[in-house]
Amino acid sequence: MHVVVNAAMSADGKLSSRRREQIAISGADDFDRVDRLRADSDAVMVGVGTVLADDPSLTVDDPDRQAARTSEGKPANPARVVADSRVRTPPDARLLDDQAATYLLVSEAAPTDFIEEMEEAGAYVIATGEDRVDLTTALAKLEGEGVDQLMVEGGGELIAGLFAEGLVDELSVFVGPTIIGGRDAPTLADGDGFVEEFPALTLQSVERVDDGVLLRWTV
Amino acid sequence: MHVVVNAAMSADGKLSSRRREQIAISGADDFDRVDRLRADSDAVMVGVGTVLADDPSLTVDDPDRQAARTSEGKPANPARVVADSRVRTPPDARLLDDQAATYLLVSEAAPTDFIEEMEEAGAYVIATGEDRVDLTTALAKLEGEGVDQLMVEGGGELIAGLFAEGLVDELSVFVGPTIIGGRDAPTLADGDGFVEEFPALTLQSVERVDDGVLLRWTV
Repeated sequence: MHVVVNAAMSADGKLSSRRREQIAISGADDFDRVDRLRADSDAVMVGVGTVLADDPSLTVDDPDRQAARTSEGKPANPARVVADSRVRTPPDARLLDDQAATYLLVSEAAPTDFIEEMEEAGAYVIATGEDRVDLTTALAKLEGEGVDQLMVEGGGELIAGLFAEGLVDELSVFVGPTIIGGRDAPTLADGDGFVEEFPALTLQSVERVDDGVLLRWTV
Repeated sequence: MHVVVNAAMSADGKLSSRRREQIAISGADDFDRVDRLRADSDAVMVGVGTVLADDPSLTVDDPDRQAARTSEGKPANPARVVADSRVRTPPDARLLDDQAATYLLVSEAAPTDFIEEMEEAGAYVIATGEDRVDLTTALAKLEGEGVDQLMVEGGGELIAGLFAEGLVDELSVFVGPTIIGGRDAPTLADGDGFVEEFPALTLQSVERVDDGVLLRWTV
């Protein structure tokens, strides 16, 4: 499985404000790039914090790209994946609609009634890990379901968890022309953070996009 | 006065780990660039958190640059400025040595004995603001002392405070090839953060330096 993390951050590394409200960091060109990346992926993953904050659909926006996918025998949209250790996904979340398959990753401690509710809402539930999602095992199970190209769109807790497990192959970051600030605002990689050994990246490309810059790193 | 913020951050926007230990984010080329920027400044400013974490001297490293300054009738090193609202600067801090003049910015609530101790240690104390340093007034006073070119080296609380007061003219950020992570790790701009209006930047240049990239923004 190839895991690409894609995110837009402010010049000071924030994904949104301390209120977790979505902020337009990038512009039309980056939006189009993200849409193309989604269309090229087998699944698009977010953490439940992003579901609660933004209620994204994670579907492909461009009908031509959807048509290209179906002509290749794929579903019009990639599958959606939510990491939800604390069973907070609301049953009316937009990404539980019928526009694409949705995998919900929970821990083995997830209550049966929550799992049933999510399955009724249309999700495929994958339970791994004692009381938190075991991301390594969960991604291996997704690979068994045919997910070879996984795009991760945030948030900072999920991205940090994937880095901590050594699961990230590539990181694409749009750095936008704004300062969000805030010691409590979500950053590109939150979690507990590293303190001794830090994941080393290699800069693959630097490209001006919209009014910012797109940095592509490999891990 | 022209205020340049200069910092090195990880690819996820962190200045150091959650333990506030200094981490080598940049390399020799960026270090040299920072030294040149220091030599071109009238004063170099940090917040007291940076003093407590790193105990920097903030002096110019290259003797040729020091010689060039003295041949222009300047002191060998730029002045040093510490923003210290909560009077935490230790009297044995390295930047209180005699290698350069040091201005200590405190609030009007700073105790007399602390001010006396700092003055004995060699600092020029500037008191502004009721219980926190009033950065606008303090920088105007520094300008009155001949500081036209001010370089700010961090940390995230001071940088956020300067952005909040609209005092930053330029932001140079080296983005390094590593992930530090951590929801409690210091970022390029901490403080309370912005929630409605966000400072807008203009990207002036993008340059590969060491194994990362140097982004220069104007505000």
